[in-house]
Amino acid sequence: MGTVVALGGQVGGAKLADGLYRVRGRELALIVNTGDDYEYLGLAFSPDLDTALYALGGIAASTAGWEPEGETRSLQSMLRTLGGPGHPPLGDKSLAAALLRSQGLAAGRRLTEVTLDFCRNLGIGARVLPMSDDPVRTHVITDDGAIPFPEYFGELGCEPRAHGLEYAGADQARISDEVLDALHAADLEAVVITPANPYHVIGPILEISGMRELLRKRGAPVIAVTPIVGGKALKGSAGKIMRDLGKEPTPRAVAATYLRLIDGFVIDRQDADMADSVRSLGMQVLAAQTVMRTIDDRVALARTVLEFARSVRDAKAEVE
Amino acid sequence: MGTVVALGGQVGGAKLADGLYRVRGRELALIVNTGDDYEYLGLAFSPDLDTALYALGGIAASTAGWEPEGETRSLQSMLRTLGGPGHPPLGDKSLAAALLRSQGLAAGRRLTEVTLDFCRNLGIGARVLPMSDDPVRTHVITDDGAIPFPEYFGELGCEPRAHGLEYAGADQARISDEVLDALHAADLEAVVITPANPYHVIGPILEISGMRELLRKRGAPVIAVTPIVGGKALKGSAGKIMRDLGKEPTPRAVAATYLRLIDGFVIDRQDADMADSVRSLGMQVLAAQTVMRTIDDRVALARTVLEFARSVRDAKAEVE
Repeated sequence: MGTVVALGGQVGGAKLADGLYRVRGRELALIVNTGDDYEYLGLAFSPDLDTALYALGGIAASTAGWEPEGETRSLQSMLRTLGGPGHPPLGDKSLAAALLRSQGLAAGRRLTEVTLDFCRNLGIGARVLPMSDDPVRTHVITDDGAIPFPEYFGELGCEPRAHGLEYAGADQARISDEVLDALHAADLEAVVITPANPYHVIGPILEISGMRELLRKRGAPVIAVTPIVGGKALKGSAGKIMRDLGKEPTPRAVAATYLRLIDGFVIDRQDADMADSVRSLGMQVLAAQTVMRTIDDRVALARTVLEFARSVRDAKAEVE
Repeated sequence: MGTVVALGGQVGGAKLADGLYRVRGRELALIVNTGDDYEYLGLAFSPDLDTALYALGGIAASTAGWEPEGETRSLQSMLRTLGGPGHPPLGDKSLAAALLRSQGLAAGRRLTEVTLDFCRNLGIGARVLPMSDDPVRTHVITDDGAIPFPEYFGELGCEPRAHGLEYAGADQARISDEVLDALHAADLEAVVITPANPYHVIGPILEISGMRELLRKRGAPVIAVTPIVGGKALKGSAGKIMRDLGKEPTPRAVAATYLRLIDGFVIDRQDADMADSVRSLGMQVLAAQTVMRTIDDRVALARTVLEFARSVRDAKAEVE
């Protein structure tokens, strides 16, 4: 068995990453979107990194995977009492990572170093890695101009029509040594794109200058898992943004965004009738249970994806 | 009735300030010690300011007056989980003021402006004013060198022997326009030194360059209330530090630290037998109930102190 690199963000991505971690342990490196990072009250928030850390650390709330379990909201109410901003509705525990991150960055540490410290303290053997130590900010292009994604999602509820997305800073952002090491690994077995919004979660990662080439460098199969099941994004904004962009929110449309990058695509069992349509894009397709309600579901999907990667690799080897 | 200026810090000081506020409303200006301010996790903590704000805002916890009521400790536990520092044991709500203060200061606002904003938002009609917008830091001189007071008190539990105190920055700190206005008021009726540690709460305020002169400028009587009752400081560190400095922790010893500044000194009823001894220092003395267990106690002591100030003023007028 070799090493596995996963790309992700959001709760769905964190769930599959957790499954991969439970199957592969320290052989997993998870590259996480930081395009939705933002500053609030002078603190550095990295929602996708924290969601991943809580999931792999086993402390995510079961009902709200982006928060630690047992979250409270005392500080937020006091902020309002003192005349501070009332949103976003951050819990008390969720502020801890932001506080320590801000302190670390202010002391000159890299985001990657701060994140790996969190991994150590949470007992996570896998490497959770920001996609870059340089800032990238995803904006949604609307009639009112470019809006930072956290504002588009949190304050505007994805209301404004999206004409496109831009990833400010992605072309100058450097790939960290830690991400390079993970993707250069001689025993890299698979690259897994977890089920997350292809536009604002996976998109920014792929836009980092040189990332697409690097993902294919070792020749390991690249497998993506659909975030769209039965015509609906399971969580978040993918469906709405896709419709705004004139695309049907289907697994095929997601797969099309990964053309020339992925070798295989996993659709949900209930969308099995779309398999041929996706296959016609020029990739292998597997239908599986992609909805992860339990920890067992995460582990099962992780195993399924890794087996699929193996079969894709074997098929490629036969052709070559 | 004129205006009243109070000097204070700590819970005892905040209680009497609250009593004065309940009696005089917006005619009160409270000048608060900032010598114990500190940075933690990159945030600006002002414990005495916040204690005063919670008291006058009517949201202080009844059992721990330095905290807002309904305090929780979720963030602190998460900080530890993530490998952050474990102390001081700040609650979630207590962080709100520090966060907003840090943000305000980072944006170039003065500590006084930030504090007056808090007053407005808490519905406090009185002016709660930091003793200066410039940093002053109280250190305790020990065998191991000068230790910042918050560390001496919080982490070291006042254990090291104190040889003295120093107020770093006090000689360069400027008196703010708001404090100048309060002390220049033509109708200034009394200056009240609330019951708080004379060394690390009232001391720093008095050490600000020009403050002692200013306190006497309008000729209003200056009245101090003892923080020592029956040989014990009601809260905090006064007794220990006084003994370290070779002084008996008595009302007389406290009064002696205010020589040539105050006109009258309020001792507790249970120390009434010490009245003559204090009087011999050359000041008027009143024995009253200084222990404030209830809101009514605060109001009663405030009225007593203001009446005492009036009699002192009348006596001065007769002499002149």
